[in-house]
Amino acid sequence: MSIEKDRDVDILEVAPRDGFQSIAEPLPTEEKIAIIEDLLAAGYRRMEIGSFVSPKAVPQMADMGTIADHFAARPGLRLAVLVPNRKGAELAIQHGMRELVYVFSASEAHNLKNVRQTIEQSLGQLRELVSLGAGGRDLRLRVAIATCFDCPFDGPVSTDQVRHAVDQALSIAPTAEIALCDTTGRANPYQVRERFNRIMAEFDADGRDWAFHGHDTFGMGVANALFAYEAGVRNLDVSASGLGGCPFAPGATGNTAAEDLVFALESGGIRTGIDMERLLAVADRINKLPGACTGGHLRVVPRQRAVA
Amino acid sequence: MSIEKDRDVDILEVAPRDGFQSIAEPLPTEEKIAIIEDLLAAGYRRMEIGSFVSPKAVPQMADMGTIADHFAARPGLRLAVLVPNRKGAELAIQHGMRELVYVFSASEAHNLKNVRQTIEQSLGQLRELVSLGAGGRDLRLRVAIATCFDCPFDGPVSTDQVRHAVDQALSIAPTAEIALCDTTGRANPYQVRERFNRIMAEFDADGRDWAFHGHDTFGMGVANALFAYEAGVRNLDVSASGLGGCPFAPGATGNTAAEDLVFALESGGIRTGIDMERLLAVADRINKLPGACTGGHLRVVPRQRAVA
Repeated sequence: MSIEKDRDVDILEVAPRDGFQSIAEPLPTEEKIAIIEDLLAAGYRRMEIGSFVSPKAVPQMADMGTIADHFAARPGLRLAVLVPNRKGAELAIQHGMRELVYVFSASEAHNLKNVRQTIEQSLGQLRELVSLGAGGRDLRLRVAIATCFDCPFDGPVSTDQVRHAVDQALSIAPTAEIALCDTTGRANPYQVRERFNRIMAEFDADGRDWAFHGHDTFGMGVANALFAYEAGVRNLDVSASGLGGCPFAPGATGNTAAEDLVFALESGGIRTGIDMERLLAVADRINKLPGACTGGHLRVVPRQRAVA
Repeated sequence: MSIEKDRDVDILEVAPRDGFQSIAEPLPTEEKIAIIEDLLAAGYRRMEIGSFVSPKAVPQMADMGTIADHFAARPGLRLAVLVPNRKGAELAIQHGMRELVYVFSASEAHNLKNVRQTIEQSLGQLRELVSLGAGGRDLRLRVAIATCFDCPFDGPVSTDQVRHAVDQALSIAPTAEIALCDTTGRANPYQVRERFNRIMAEFDADGRDWAFHGHDTFGMGVANALFAYEAGVRNLDVSASGLGGCPFAPGATGNTAAEDLVFALESGGIRTGIDMERLLAVADRINKLPGACTGGHLRVVPRQRAVA
């Protein structure tokens, strides 16, 4: 289990990866590092600090090596980078990272559009990562399965499709954490709960880490995460301020805001280990980034309180 | 029970009351009537169509009589008006209304600010309404208890305070529907579920209508309503497009958007009786009202789908 004594759930911050890549203008490396430091100071134990991808594909990640070098040796934390292939994994290892995230889609159409290869080809890449040690004791592995509820091209995704994807992933990487991702933010809470209930029951829930990655497109972000929690999921992805795509841009939608979910959990007595005041201070900083599309709700309070 | 065979839950629309009053500029009476007609055509069975309050206090409600005359005789529906006192109730009866909503607060400080009288005085007014027949077969009554979770002046509200308020309300109006209201939108889902579980268990849940009225201030709107549903609440307040206050205005926050909650429930297999396409069309119309502060999430979809 990934949960320590001081927290009932791991809130996994993805703003430095899923968030920063949504900002077109390159952010200074020192600004990114400072934001990640502030997020860590707020109490996160897990974070995706970026992606080792082609700088041509995602210019925002061109300084990934520098950022990895800065954070890789940090003790007591689970800091991960997304890698799309063997080359990315090799860079991650070279820069001292000890946890990888690998993504493929439950939906063939989305996989083709997202990573320009078939699911079968993606599974081949996953095999290469495992051959490099991913999933072993020194290099943890999350397999993030995109479009586990809804595909922007094919529509609804069935439990059977997800079951098949999980089965394939675990046959290659049996120790991996499995994240079911609501890539479009169109999942609904009952669907999220039922799907996790079924998949976790089938694939040996005990001892395996399961995660939910959600977006707030339809305003379901918090509800979906709480229903995943009700199903027993103890790793929930968020983004401070909701950074992670703009609802007005084609196909892009914001991640569930960290502060919204932390509020829901903490005020319900579920410990996240995160300091809300510090988190809100970072969210404020992220809100001011040029071109940042954000969607957190909690900053309404001080405005109200000030005038009440 | 208020639930008919074709729906598992009653979604109660409050845009014409809680929503219109948030718009400063007076809307033409025919526009209000047209919007209410469109909402009814979308499938609502219950709606608050306005308030019989002093036009000096709420100028937007100055045409309440005309609107009530238009809708009062509509069969098969539960259309209600908010009344703050005997005079309002008398006007409602005179205009043929058959269902009243009366509000007082669990928190003394909020009651004083909101209706400028003590809770004791408010209970006196409730007695007068009952003496006029409210709560009887021909004049249904909802008692809406404001600030059941959080008070903008006193902070957190305890279960004991809510229990006391419910007890007082039912001792005066034993047949009333009881709505626990998250007036500020600062309640959290676990609190909502637990509070309803406890209050409903104590006050004879069977056969009584219980309702939850929520706002989306902290992004908890959908989650709070679903957790109320999980506790057994079958009357959930919403506002098409989330109309009902502006998050940037002092103390005002939008109601939970009807389309967001209907999406969550319907896609989870819980029938609301509401036609989503028609609802979204009215939400679009409301979005265009001058000075409307809205917060629904579902209109992101067609924009995305158009370019995907």
